Amino acid sequence: MNIEILPRIKSPLDMQTLSGTELETLAAEIREVLCTVVEDRSAHFASNLGVVELCIALHMSYDFSRDRLIWDTGHQIYPHKLLTGRYSEISTIRRKGGLMGYPNPEESDYDLFMTGHAGASVSTVLGLKAGDDLRGESDRKSVAVIGDGALPSGVVFEAMNNAAGMDQDVLVILNDNKMGICPRVGGLAKYLDKARVAPFYNGLKRDVSWLLNKLPVVGESMENTLGSFKEAVKGFLHGGMLFEEMGFRYIGPVDGHDIESLSGYLQMIKNIKGPVLLHVLTEKGHGFEPATNDPVSFHAPAPFQRNEENEIVPVEKPGSGSPKGFTDVVSSTIFQAMTDNERVVVLTAAMCAGNKLGKVRDGFPDRFFDTGICEAHAVAFAGGMAKAGLRPIVDIYSTFLQRSFDHIFQEVALQNLPVTFCMDRAGIAGEDGPTHHGAFDNTYMRCFPNIVNMSPGDALDVEPMLEFSLQHDGPTAIRYPKAAADAVERKVAPVELGKSEVYVWGKDGMLIAFGSLFTNCIQAAEKLREEGLDVGVINARFSKPLDTEVIHQALQESGFVITVEEGTLCGGFGSAVLESANDAGLNTSHLKRLGIPDRFIEHGNRKELLADLGLDVAGITATARELAQQTKVVIND
Amino acid sequence: MNIEILPRIKSPLDMQTLSGTELETLAAEIREVLCTVVEDRSAHFASNLGVVELCIALHMSYDFSRDRLIWDTGHQIYPHKLLTGRYSEISTIRRKGGLMGYPNPEESDYDLFMTGHAGASVSTVLGLKAGDDLRGESDRKSVAVIGDGALPSGVVFEAMNNAAGMDQDVLVILNDNKMGICPRVGGLAKYLDKARVAPFYNGLKRDVSWLLNKLPVVGESMENTLGSFKEAVKGFLHGGMLFEEMGFRYIGPVDGHDIESLSGYLQMIKNIKGPVLLHVLTEKGHGFEPATNDPVSFHAPAPFQRNEENEIVPVEKPGSGSPKGFTDVVSSTIFQAMTDNERVVVLTAAMCAGNKLGKVRDGFPDRFFDTGICEAHAVAFAGGMAKAGLRPIVDIYSTFLQRSFDHIFQEVALQNLPVTFCMDRAGIAGEDGPTHHGAFDNTYMRCFPNIVNMSPGDALDVEPMLEFSLQHDGPTAIRYPKAAADAVERKVAPVELGKSEVYVWGKDGMLIAFGSLFTNCIQAAEKLREEGLDVGVINARFSKPLDTEVIHQALQESGFVITVEEGTLCGGFGSAVLESANDAGLNTSHLKRLGIPDRFIEHGNRKELLADLGLDVAGITATARELAQQTKVVIND
Repeated sequence: MNIEILPRIKSPLDMQTLSGTELETLAAEIREVLCTVVEDRSAHFASNLGVVELCIALHMSYDFSRDRLIWDTGHQIYPHKLLTGRYSEISTIRRKGGLMGYPNPEESDYDLFMTGHAGASVSTVLGLKAGDDLRGESDRKSVAVIGDGALPSGVVFEAMNNAAGMDQDVLVILNDNKMGICPRVGGLAKYLDKARVAPFYNGLKRDVSWLLNKLPVVGESMENTLGSFKEAVKGFLHGGMLFEEMGFRYIGPVDGHDIESLSGYLQMIKNIKGPVLLHVLTEKGHGFEPATNDPVSFHAPAPFQRNEENEIVPVEKPGSGSPKGFTDVVSSTIFQAMTDNERVVVLTAAMCAGNKLGKVRDGFPDRFFDTGICEAHAVAFAGGMAKAGLRPIVDIYSTFLQRSFDHIFQEVALQNLPVTFCMDRAGIAGEDGPTHHGAFDNTYMRCFPNIVNMSPGDALDVEPMLEFSLQHDGPTAIRYPKAAADAVERKVAPVELGKSEVYVWGKDGMLIAFGSLFTNCIQAAEKLREEGLDVGVINARFSKPLDTEVIHQALQESGFVITVEEGTLCGGFGSAVLESANDAGLNTSHLKRLGIPDRFIEHGNRKELLADLGLDVAGITATARELAQQTKVVIND
Repeated sequence: MNIEILPRIKSPLDMQTLSGTELETLAAEIREVLCTVVEDRSAHFASNLGVVELCIALHMSYDFSRDRLIWDTGHQIYPHKLLTGRYSEISTIRRKGGLMGYPNPEESDYDLFMTGHAGASVSTVLGLKAGDDLRGESDRKSVAVIGDGALPSGVVFEAMNNAAGMDQDVLVILNDNKMGICPRVGGLAKYLDKARVAPFYNGLKRDVSWLLNKLPVVGESMENTLGSFKEAVKGFLHGGMLFEEMGFRYIGPVDGHDIESLSGYLQMIKNIKGPVLLHVLTEKGHGFEPATNDPVSFHAPAPFQRNEENEIVPVEKPGSGSPKGFTDVVSSTIFQAMTDNERVVVLTAAMCAGNKLGKVRDGFPDRFFDTGICEAHAVAFAGGMAKAGLRPIVDIYSTFLQRSFDHIFQEVALQNLPVTFCMDRAGIAGEDGPTHHGAFDNTYMRCFPNIVNMSPGDALDVEPMLEFSLQHDGPTAIRYPKAAADAVERKVAPVELGKSEVYVWGKDGMLIAFGSLFTNCIQAAEKLREEGLDVGVINARFSKPLDTEVIHQALQESGFVITVEEGTLCGGFGSAVLESANDAGLNTSHLKRLGIPDRFIEHGNRKELLADLGLDVAGITATARELAQQTKVVIND
């Protein structure tokens, strides 16, 4: 189809003159653009298709150059970007230097917070409203849009409790598509399923009103009882008693694909005092049949093509010889561990798909626990299971595990319980950008006593490392990136507590890799050897406890030492080496630490970003050459 | 009164033969012992008085040598300790080497988790139950006791959602005393207030049943409606619709000071399948009038004495010249800042008392926000207010701020918003022990880009530091211990970004203090000067950004350097110095880092613990002497 209306929308104000039919056409155009975007890159898709009408209705009903709008989690931001002056740039999305795949205040004043982690929208909207009120701008309205997947996140409940206590005018729109990234779970999921067929939606309200009218007339002594009774019935009529009980006015459920009706509700809500929850029913993937049929796969699909009938046709796959990712290797290793040891259980926080745990879930349904987007609970829950004698594996992205920091402290490290953390996406996560890079885990895990902190150098490390962790009497963490898991040809040394693996020794210099940049280090060392420098490589494996014996030997016997890690340099692996050397009174002026510097890293292709950070083969080689010169090792050329 | 029954209770089994009257006497004896404990030390008090009967009823109804019991937050653990074989040791409680003031698995198998942070009990109990079931021990019952203060904590909601989804047999006892440490707040507080007068409790149930019976007989088409309608009414009857809607069976509210009645309910609940919430009404301070009259002051009162009428008589106060604590100095500085700048707002997470913010709350009710025990929300909420143009101060204990780690990341640091974190109890918190020591904040704050991290050297630093933070264009954190705030006589240097204060220079050695151990360093330096060593002192003030100029000069020009901090050595201030020196290629083999080592620190008097860690004047002096010898500086004596 031709995209005709969308290019004329330079700001949401330009929509105000459009007719109802034109708005429908605009919605169709947005969907077409979304398909085009996904035709040549992996991007969030089904969730964006689902909020097109809601996004149009919101921008028609409010002026978000002044009013406040937060899209929780943020991956459903594409229609919003298209309607707020970024249509011409949409082809750059998720590419380095281009638009971010999440809200980004640097791109537009219509984006207030860079979001990516779920659940904080109600808090920030409440803060914006309280701030606007205090600054004498109480005419500004505040709206949070939150998915049913993010709703069970504890911070949402905390914020709703506070909003209700303050009786603050905030609108929380529950975008209920019956899904997180994976199907939703928990008591709240059941509750929302019931609410979908509540009287408000189905017109049963009349029946109940009729019943109420049949109630007998009562004397004064019964008045209070009857009053409370009618309150209860009101809640029932609303079908949102849970939210009403929490102190929110509940409205819904309403059809999230009817722009006119949505706009009507939004206008009505503007006049309601106090916190309101609007329950909107949307369909993930709406308007594109392959996505509605399989919303999990189409959450963030690989690039695809369409034929003339709007059907998906396979895109030529890259060579079948491409190596598996660490996520694949870990998930199949977990599967094997569960087969071997019936005490092993696995927890995920709504990331069954991202962590590729489908086979584990299906193979061991009794020992697989999906808590939903509730990382804090997941970790404390795992602590309880460990105390009962199980061996829980908590499989969560590095960046999302930040949400359970305090429970890693109290329920795991302090109790010294044998929980294994599999920290996926540790390091540069690529196109998702700063909210998703796993830059901090090595620092935040390492600071807690009792925790053993590891990272596999390659695919061959994964199995023995997980095996080690599952028999270690205390908490362990294994970090690995979203990257291909190479297998370095070698006699793999057994994984032992605090022992590194010396790949090759070098008298001129040593590269000590913590994690999968091990393979880059091997290639860099080869190149340097070709240039005449005798440079060795160590696969550190442990950042805590450190292999002080080998690392100190390198510091004492080799010309220079470079630590290489895919994590922040603030308190990371390199710092652990510095600390340990300092404790031993060793000189470290010939040591250089490579890693993620002290700034938030943009989005982009992982390889590009690693190169920018000097963590690719060329960067490591260059640093080594420089150090070699400083430390007076003569280079051949 | 004479304590006669309690000494015979070596284990809960010994209670089984007691009559109802004897159990009442036992309760009175426990209260008497609790009073005795508090007569010569500060300890948690009112909350313990409130759970005496509940604790007896629990141990009468279950066998917790096999069944599972978690006391959430844990400061109400005293009666439990008294009934599980620790009566003879109770006089040691909260003293170094004695019983811990919280549950401690090392003391007794009846204590399953060391708790101290609120809210995780439902998660751990669910984990224990799931673990027991998987291990074929599904006869084991699981019980969590959680206060209404901890209930709004997000992780509780996450766990209840999961328990309901799993339909797991867990009992959550809501110990509702209408209080956290401070009066409870939020929508849930209002809700529980309503529930207190719900029909179940007041007998209005009959009225409603009568109404229901008056409903007309209906045809088949109405059947479904009527079914749902009766469900709604059932919820109303229960008065716990909120919990019922979440998927829990709600029972209550019931009298928490009636052992027999409580035991009856507990027996009944054992036969209910699925998750149950038992709403128990207790009185904080029950049985001791001064405490019931003022439960906030008697939460953890200073030592007191009673006269023969069981009234409080004043204990002789320590000399009125004793210096104010950092908490006092910070709260009065905050008050002044709010007076001067109407954009300043203050947030606390149920710690109005602990943070001494009463005057701030009363003076600026519109700009003071108590979120309840919801640290995650508090930080995201502050982010929203900062975005709206306010200058929020988040005043939370260092250890509890761990609960908002991910929101410090996403809603503050990533957005570079001007939120000021006042991190109270940073360092050794004293008698509360490992759950309360603030050991990790310097590491976990420092790893995030954009955050400026500070610590005042003494009382005189506080005002200029807060002033600096409130005009800095980005997030700042100020850490300070639970300790007297000395004022070091000097011309106080202005607080400037990344600038330390050189107190005195020393050619033989330099002590660089980050935080209030500055005064210990001054005393140590004086002692060392008396011994003939020219030792200087720097008040670092910033751990990020570091004052590299001055610190590097110290490393280059002075014989030795000692960094002194009241925080973990894993990634702390000393590590920041190592990193910075390493980046500059400086030698650090004459640098020694003093701080908290990589283990959990027990409970005890702060001075004792600092001495153990070598952080008192004697310890710092000894380390300096040692280094001086190693670095070949001749000592006079």
